[in-house]
Amino acid sequence: MSKFSPGSTTTIGNYLLAKLKEAGVNHIFGIPGDYVINFFSEIEKSDIETIVPCTEQGAAFAADAYSRLNGIGALCVTYCVGGLNTINAVAGAYAEKAPLIVISGAPGLCEYDSDYLLHHSVRDHDSQLNIFKEVTVSQTRLSDPHNAAFEIDRVIKDCIESKRPVYIELPRDMVHENCLVPQPRHEVKCASNLAVLEEALAESIELIQAAGNPVIIGGVEIRRYGLEQEFTGLLEKSGYPYVTTILGKSIIDESHPQFAGVYMGKLGDENVQELIENCDCTVILGALMTDTNLGTAQLDISKTIYATADQLCIKHHYYKGINLKEYITKLSDLLTDYKKDVNISRPEVENYTPQNNAPITITRFFDRLNRFIPEGSTVICDVGDSLFGSIDLEIPKDSCYLGPAYYTSMGYAVPAALGAQVARPEARPIVIVGDGAFQMICQELSTIAAQGLNPIIFVLNNKGYTTQRYLKDGSYNDINNWDYHRLIEVFGAGKGFEVNTEGDFEETLALVMDNKDSFSLINLNFDRYDRSKTLDRLTSHFKRKV
Amino acid sequence: MSKFSPGSTTTIGNYLLAKLKEAGVNHIFGIPGDYVINFFSEIEKSDIETIVPCTEQGAAFAADAYSRLNGIGALCVTYCVGGLNTINAVAGAYAEKAPLIVISGAPGLCEYDSDYLLHHSVRDHDSQLNIFKEVTVSQTRLSDPHNAAFEIDRVIKDCIESKRPVYIELPRDMVHENCLVPQPRHEVKCASNLAVLEEALAESIELIQAAGNPVIIGGVEIRRYGLEQEFTGLLEKSGYPYVTTILGKSIIDESHPQFAGVYMGKLGDENVQELIENCDCTVILGALMTDTNLGTAQLDISKTIYATADQLCIKHHYYKGINLKEYITKLSDLLTDYKKDVNISRPEVENYTPQNNAPITITRFFDRLNRFIPEGSTVICDVGDSLFGSIDLEIPKDSCYLGPAYYTSMGYAVPAALGAQVARPEARPIVIVGDGAFQMICQELSTIAAQGLNPIIFVLNNKGYTTQRYLKDGSYNDINNWDYHRLIEVFGAGKGFEVNTEGDFEETLALVMDNKDSFSLINLNFDRYDRSKTLDRLTSHFKRKV
Repeated sequence: MSKFSPGSTTTIGNYLLAKLKEAGVNHIFGIPGDYVINFFSEIEKSDIETIVPCTEQGAAFAADAYSRLNGIGALCVTYCVGGLNTINAVAGAYAEKAPLIVISGAPGLCEYDSDYLLHHSVRDHDSQLNIFKEVTVSQTRLSDPHNAAFEIDRVIKDCIESKRPVYIELPRDMVHENCLVPQPRHEVKCASNLAVLEEALAESIELIQAAGNPVIIGGVEIRRYGLEQEFTGLLEKSGYPYVTTILGKSIIDESHPQFAGVYMGKLGDENVQELIENCDCTVILGALMTDTNLGTAQLDISKTIYATADQLCIKHHYYKGINLKEYITKLSDLLTDYKKDVNISRPEVENYTPQNNAPITITRFFDRLNRFIPEGSTVICDVGDSLFGSIDLEIPKDSCYLGPAYYTSMGYAVPAALGAQVARPEARPIVIVGDGAFQMICQELSTIAAQGLNPIIFVLNNKGYTTQRYLKDGSYNDINNWDYHRLIEVFGAGKGFEVNTEGDFEETLALVMDNKDSFSLINLNFDRYDRSKTLDRLTSHFKRKV
Repeated sequence: MSKFSPGSTTTIGNYLLAKLKEAGVNHIFGIPGDYVINFFSEIEKSDIETIVPCTEQGAAFAADAYSRLNGIGALCVTYCVGGLNTINAVAGAYAEKAPLIVISGAPGLCEYDSDYLLHHSVRDHDSQLNIFKEVTVSQTRLSDPHNAAFEIDRVIKDCIESKRPVYIELPRDMVHENCLVPQPRHEVKCASNLAVLEEALAESIELIQAAGNPVIIGGVEIRRYGLEQEFTGLLEKSGYPYVTTILGKSIIDESHPQFAGVYMGKLGDENVQELIENCDCTVILGALMTDTNLGTAQLDISKTIYATADQLCIKHHYYKGINLKEYITKLSDLLTDYKKDVNISRPEVENYTPQNNAPITITRFFDRLNRFIPEGSTVICDVGDSLFGSIDLEIPKDSCYLGPAYYTSMGYAVPAALGAQVARPEARPIVIVGDGAFQMICQELSTIAAQGLNPIIFVLNNKGYTTQRYLKDGSYNDINNWDYHRLIEVFGAGKGFEVNTEGDFEETLALVMDNKDSFSLINLNFDRYDRSKTLDRLTSHFKRKV
C-alpha cells in the first residue's frame, strides 16, 4: 500500500509535498530560516525543486508569475521575518487573481508556552496569521495531526477554485508528525442553476443579437480558469471583434484576426476607444472592473453584459450562481447571428527605420520592440511607462504577456522573469522595467543567473519616477543614476549593454539575440521627461484626480 | 495669530508636519506614489527633510534606526504597494520597541464609492489598516477634518509613550482640508501608585540588601525611555556589577568600570554566565525577556527582580502601575549597601598581531575590529554571525550599538546605517553584515552615497546562510557569490576592497580610515563553515530545539 493511500499514515510534511505536486507545483520559491528549515530539508528530498532567490519579495513575485503561467505556484518562507516580507507580493496575487500557495514555518507548538518571547515574533502567535487573512482567501495552521491532511486538502482546493492565494502555517515541530491520509474529497461540482442559466442566456442572446455591432472584452479570468478555447469558440461562432483589458492582454494569441487591441478607456488607443464606445452591445468576459483596466471607460451599462467567475450582470441587474465556462459555452451554442463582414482594424505597428545618431526615445523604443519580440516569448512589464508603453506592443504567436496591471506594484518584472522562465524554460522572457522599479529588486538577476536562465532585460532609465513627474514634480521623484549594465561585473554573469542612440539599440539587439546562454541587461538612457503615448493620455487624466 | 495657535485653522497635512517636527522628527524616509504625492509635496515645502531610499523596506529600516538614535522617527509611503512592503520592518520596530510613525497615503474618500476597483487595493478599503493593527500600537485614518488634529495628537502621543510604531492613514483628498488646531492635550502624568510603589520598593531593597552578590542586567528600555542617568545613578550608588542583554548592548558607555559584559545565557561568554548564574540576586531593568536575549538563561526566579515599562515582577508575583523611572530613582535613593570590593572582570579584548599571509577568519576579524572601532562610532550589526560575533565587541566611548537582536530580520544593517548617520552625522557607522543579508538590500548603499554619508561596511562573505548550515545543511543554504566590492562601479560612488588574508585586512583598514568622503565596502572572504565562538555555542544549543 502506497504511503498516500487513504487510511495509511505519512508525515504532515510529506503529505503537504505530495498534495502540492498533485496540484501541479514542480518548483517552490523561498528562503529558509530556522522555523522552516525542517520543511526545506523535506522539499530537498522530494521531487519538487527548491529555488532560493535573494529576497522573500523576489521569491513571492517569482512564485506569482510561475502560478500565472503554470496554473498554480508555491512559496515557502520562515516566520514573520520571511512571511511579512511577502505581504505586498501576496496582496498583488490576491488583487490580480494568481493562484499562489504560501507556506510559512512557525514556532513549534511546544514552544508556545515558553517563558520567553520567541524571536521573529510580533504581538502574539496569531499576528502573522491575522495579517495573511487580509491577503489570502483561505488559511490554516497545521496544529493538529488529526485534521492536518484535511486542512491541506481544503486550503489547496480553495486556491485552485478561487485562483487566489492561500496560507498554510506549519509549526516546526509538526513537519515530521504523522497524519492519516484521508479519502479523496467529495467534490461538489459548481454547475450553474439551470433555471437561472436559461433565463440569463435568453436575455443575453436577445440583447446581443438585437445589436448591430456587439464587441467582446476579454479579461484575465479567461486565462486563469483555462477558458481560452471556450472564448475562442465564442469569437469564431459570432465573428464579433474583441479587445482585452491590459491585465487580460494576450489571453489568446493576439494574431487572432478578430483582435482589435487593448481597451483602456480614455487612456488607450483612440480607435479602440471608438470601437467600444460606439458599439451597441458590450460583452465583458472575465475582466476585473478596475480603475487601471477600465477606470476611464465610458461604457453604456444598459447595453452591457458583464460575466465573471463570481457573477453575471446584464444591464443593471445581477444573476448569481452561473458558472463562467458554462455560460460562455452555451452562449456560443445559442448564437445564430454570425457577423462576417465586420471591419476590424487593430492599432497599426509603426514602421521603423533606425536613425543611427538619433537619441533613443520611449515611443521609438516600443516601435522597435514591436518588430523585435520573437515568437514564443514571455513579455513581462513592470509598472510605470513600462506598462503603459506596452499596451501598444503586439504580442506575437505562442507568446504571453505578464504585468501587474491592476495592483501595479513596482519591482514585479525582474523576479517575475525568474518565475516565468522556470515555468516555461523555452519562452525567453523579454522584460521591460523602469529604473525605479529595477532598483527595488535588481538582486534577483543573480538568482536568474544561478538558474542559468536567459531573459532580455530592458531598463528604461529616465533617472526617476517619471510617471509621477507628471502628477506632481519634486526632488522626491529623482533617483540616483546607476551604471545598470555593470551589475554583470558584480554577479560575474550575464552581458551588459548601454544604449544612447537608435544606432546603439540596433547593435545591441543583434548582440542580445546572439547571447542565448545568459541574461542580457540593457541600460537605455532616455530623457527624464520622455514618455509614451499612453502615459501622455494617462497623466493628463490622473492629474485632475490627485 | 500663528497658524498653529489653538482655535486657528490649518490644513491636515500642515498640522501633521508641525506635530512631527514638534515630536522631534527632522527627516522623513519614504518613497512617493500617486496616493501620497500630495503629502510629499507638502513635506518638501516644510522644514522636514525627505529622504527617498530605493525600497520601502529600506526606508522603514532607516526610519527605525533613526528613531532608535533620535528618539522618534517617521516613514511615509504610498498605499499598499508601499505600506505593505514595510510590514516586516515595522513589525521589527514593534518587537524591539522603536518609536516609529508610519504615514501612508490612501485613496481619497471621494473615491470610495467608485464603480471600479481602485489600483493598489487588496480585499477592501480596510485591508492595509487591519494589517497595520497587528504591528502598531495605535492607528488612525484621517477621514474627518473635524477630529483629524485630535487623532494626530493621540497617535503621536501613543508612539512617544509606548516607544512602539503607530499608523496614520492619510487619504489623498484630506491633505489640503482645513482642520481646527486643538488645545494642547491635557497630559495625564503616569506616576506610580504610591502605596504600590512603597511596598514594591521595600520588598526590593530587602531582597537586594540581603544578598551578598547582586548583579544588574540592563535592557533596551533604559535607552528608549532615556533612563541612562537613572541607571548609572543606581550603578554608582550600589557598586554592583552590571551586564546588558544583546538588544540592550551599549545602553550606557561600555567603558563604565562596573560593566561586566553581555549576558546571553549559555550562548554568551562563560565568565558572564558564571557571574549571573552564581549571583544571589538579579535585578533586571528594562530588558525584553526574549529567547535571543535570555532564552537559554538559567535564572533563579526566586532571587530575581524584573522591572520594565509595563510591569514589575519580584520573584513570582507582579506589581502593576509602577513607573520605571521612578522605581529606578527611588531604589537608588533607598540603597544603603555600597559594594566597593566587587571584582569585575569583563571579557578580555584579545591581543592581535596580524599574520600577513594567514587567511582571515571570523574570530580574528572580530578580534581585530575590537582594536579598530574609533570612539564616537555607531556600530551596526545585521543578523547571523554578524550579530553573534558582535557580542564580544567592546563598544568604545561615545559610541552606540544597533542590531535587530530580538526580531532578527536579515537586511537591517545597511539601511540602518543610512538612518543612523542621518540622525547622527558625526558618528560614522561601522556596519557588519553577512552576505545573505547584504544581498537582500544592497541597493540602499546607493541612497547612502546620494546622502554623502561615509559608513564602513564589512560584508562577511561565507557564500551562504552559515548559521543555518549548522542547524540543517542543504543546498538551500548556499547563495551566489558576488564581487560585492565592485558594486561601487554600478553606483559610481564609494570605495571597494576585497580581503582574503590578515595582511589584506590591515592594508584595507588603513585605506578605509583615509576614505572619509564616501562609504567603504569591504568584501571579506571567509570559509563557508567558519564561525564565531557565540555561533558555535548557539548552534549546538539550537540544534537540539529545531
